[in-house]
Amino acid sequence: MKILKVNELVSIKRSIEAGTSEQLAVVKGIITEIRNRGDVALREFTEKFDRVQLPSFSVTESEIEEAYSQVDQEYIEIVREAAENIKSFHEKQLRPSWMTTEENGTILGQKITPLDSVGVYVPGGTAAYPSSVLMNVIPAKVAGVKRIVMVSPPDEQGKLPAAVLVAAKEAGVKEIYKVGGAQAVAALAYGTETIAAVDKITGPGNIFVALAKREVFGDVDIDMIAGPSEIAVLADDTARADEVAADLLSQAEHDPRACSVLVTPSMALAEAVAEEVEKQLAILPRKEIAARSIAEYGAIYVTADLEEAVETVNQLAPEHLEVITENAMELLGKIRHAGAIFVGRYSSEPVGDYFAGPNHVLPTNGTARFSSPLNVDDFQKKSSVIIYSEKALKENGEKIAKFARMEGLEAHARAVETRLKNDK
Amino acid sequence: MKILKVNELVSIKRSIEAGTSEQLAVVKGIITEIRNRGDVALREFTEKFDRVQLPSFSVTESEIEEAYSQVDQEYIEIVREAAENIKSFHEKQLRPSWMTTEENGTILGQKITPLDSVGVYVPGGTAAYPSSVLMNVIPAKVAGVKRIVMVSPPDEQGKLPAAVLVAAKEAGVKEIYKVGGAQAVAALAYGTETIAAVDKITGPGNIFVALAKREVFGDVDIDMIAGPSEIAVLADDTARADEVAADLLSQAEHDPRACSVLVTPSMALAEAVAEEVEKQLAILPRKEIAARSIAEYGAIYVTADLEEAVETVNQLAPEHLEVITENAMELLGKIRHAGAIFVGRYSSEPVGDYFAGPNHVLPTNGTARFSSPLNVDDFQKKSSVIIYSEKALKENGEKIAKFARMEGLEAHARAVETRLKNDK
Repeated sequence: MKILKVNELVSIKRSIEAGTSEQLAVVKGIITEIRNRGDVALREFTEKFDRVQLPSFSVTESEIEEAYSQVDQEYIEIVREAAENIKSFHEKQLRPSWMTTEENGTILGQKITPLDSVGVYVPGGTAAYPSSVLMNVIPAKVAGVKRIVMVSPPDEQGKLPAAVLVAAKEAGVKEIYKVGGAQAVAALAYGTETIAAVDKITGPGNIFVALAKREVFGDVDIDMIAGPSEIAVLADDTARADEVAADLLSQAEHDPRACSVLVTPSMALAEAVAEEVEKQLAILPRKEIAARSIAEYGAIYVTADLEEAVETVNQLAPEHLEVITENAMELLGKIRHAGAIFVGRYSSEPVGDYFAGPNHVLPTNGTARFSSPLNVDDFQKKSSVIIYSEKALKENGEKIAKFARMEGLEAHARAVETRLKNDK
Repeated sequence: MKILKVNELVSIKRSIEAGTSEQLAVVKGIITEIRNRGDVALREFTEKFDRVQLPSFSVTESEIEEAYSQVDQEYIEIVREAAENIKSFHEKQLRPSWMTTEENGTILGQKITPLDSVGVYVPGGTAAYPSSVLMNVIPAKVAGVKRIVMVSPPDEQGKLPAAVLVAAKEAGVKEIYKVGGAQAVAALAYGTETIAAVDKITGPGNIFVALAKREVFGDVDIDMIAGPSEIAVLADDTARADEVAADLLSQAEHDPRACSVLVTPSMALAEAVAEEVEKQLAILPRKEIAARSIAEYGAIYVTADLEEAVETVNQLAPEHLEVITENAMELLGKIRHAGAIFVGRYSSEPVGDYFAGPNHVLPTNGTARFSSPLNVDDFQKKSSVIIYSEKALKENGEKIAKFARMEGLEAHARAVETRLKNDK
């Protein structure tokens, strides 16, 4: 792993896969077909892309029961405990609607309501990610969303992975369809005979899913389009090199374009971590992926002091940040930009991926400068409430009319003055 | 104004101006030039599009003083009072960072930090909108954003409107540049020698500004791309037709594509409002704009009862909603989707545009189903904080490792197990 000076700092921004114009044309075509022909088109695309003819898109109760019989009891209990932790953390994000009352009788407020319905996309393929089901569904559930729909592409036997179905059931999903790809996104956005349209679509997917989400955005809401994973470790001499190296590799194994960075004022730690990364990498099952990620996007930055290390981390604005230093808590106030901050050597990043409770859907690619982890706010919206009193309008009506005229909007002024006149 | 049955309900969605491919090519070209040549290109585009050679882009203190001398004292006081109201409302949206402590020593939390910097675009042209300055700048200020930059295209004398400069100063803006169009958006997103880059760009603009915002989105954050204005009035026999008509026209005068709708169970009110709209329209300065809006997008829907009227409003999900009925407050709990809700006859919509305090930047085009008024949250972001204790990792480490292996992520499992092994 290369050791660099901070003046060689490279942004963790990697280009987000934009898709080719051919891919975009395919996606647009699929969306049009689903809008025009609904279930019939959905069935055709499922046959074409997933190579399966389904008697029904819906996952039945007996399929859920079958899934439970296929996973071990320990797994079910871990999922249940993780779900409980995630629920408990996200419940603390809930905010009440509020109002203020003024002496003149005016009431102003903010009314918070959940979205009516949300669709969660769960990718198919070889690796099943039940943690992603929990992390997308539970915040929506906690937010009060009444209808949560899950979609995921079936395998050639027309099945979804048992681990995913169990996670969905534990998270509280009651409506699951075996559809995937751009056709699933289009069905969620515009509805078909079987699948009623939703207000927001979240969850990761391949390039066709990402392109489809971008296409339907505006008609429905979407979550972020996530880039590959990142970790920055901010550490000093008190950190153990083998632990730091293991955490760097935990992100590197995700994707050849994942980005793992150590920032440290300690050249001794830098050298030890570089060596440990090579050692641990050699015996990883996903070593080819991790090795490419480390070679291309991995870096160890050595800084003059801890102060400079913190500033470097703020410049990177990483998705995951670990702080493993003496008095790590004291640095918390200086960290301005990071999706999730893991403090101390026991807060290894995977703790947050599965179990601790905070969301693992985090801003990537430097967007932690302005974006947040997926959270309950993403599944609610606010309405301003304005209850102006008679007294308030009489006190302020002429000022409001004058402001409106200043902007050339006479009808605005007259709307207010009509009341003043009528009450004379 | 046409009177329709609810089964003839038309969505308020109008196509958002997408721009032509020629316009998009122009915008992309401008962005590239600004990224490559900075101030030099910015100067060229300002000469070309705004037809003025500026000695400096920056607005000076003496220009601000001059602006104050050009507006009347009453205007300054109204702006000041409006700014105070807006500040006071948005301060109530502030949330603290929080943490939870567990008995095993674990601390989980959510750290809230303001964005470092925000750019506010203020459109030029004949109509100056100082209220837009207040509504965009003040929430950012309240959120704690340290650097707030305003940009607006200069007139051919190289000036910005006095009313806008006064509003900017009252809102607390200290950095103002006389640049506009796609070139201003590009300068804010990527920086030039004079203008340092920001993290988020908000504010309305013409099609070139909107296209440029879409283009730079991802590298910086942007606010929504707003569609034309909308109002829905939910009223019964207790409402006065002249007041309802005046409010419908207050939105219609904005734009030929604005949408004004009355929903009422009262045919008598429907007919009276239709008549009043024609009467008031005839004597409006902006009657051509308003008449086109009313003809094309205006409608009065007559419902069977109040219940159906409320459900109709929820289907529309309007930007502005007025509720002028007996016991209007009792309906508040049934309204699920609206950007801002104005209750009672004294809460005329323009009250919210300028003065009451809540934001006038609101979700349009039915997006109130999933979007919120511009608010303090838009200028802050969250970081999860995970401080896992030794005890917690020892209790849960093996579960986390098992979950990771279930997802095929061995390096994740090993990261946790390295700690467990090291501590044995």
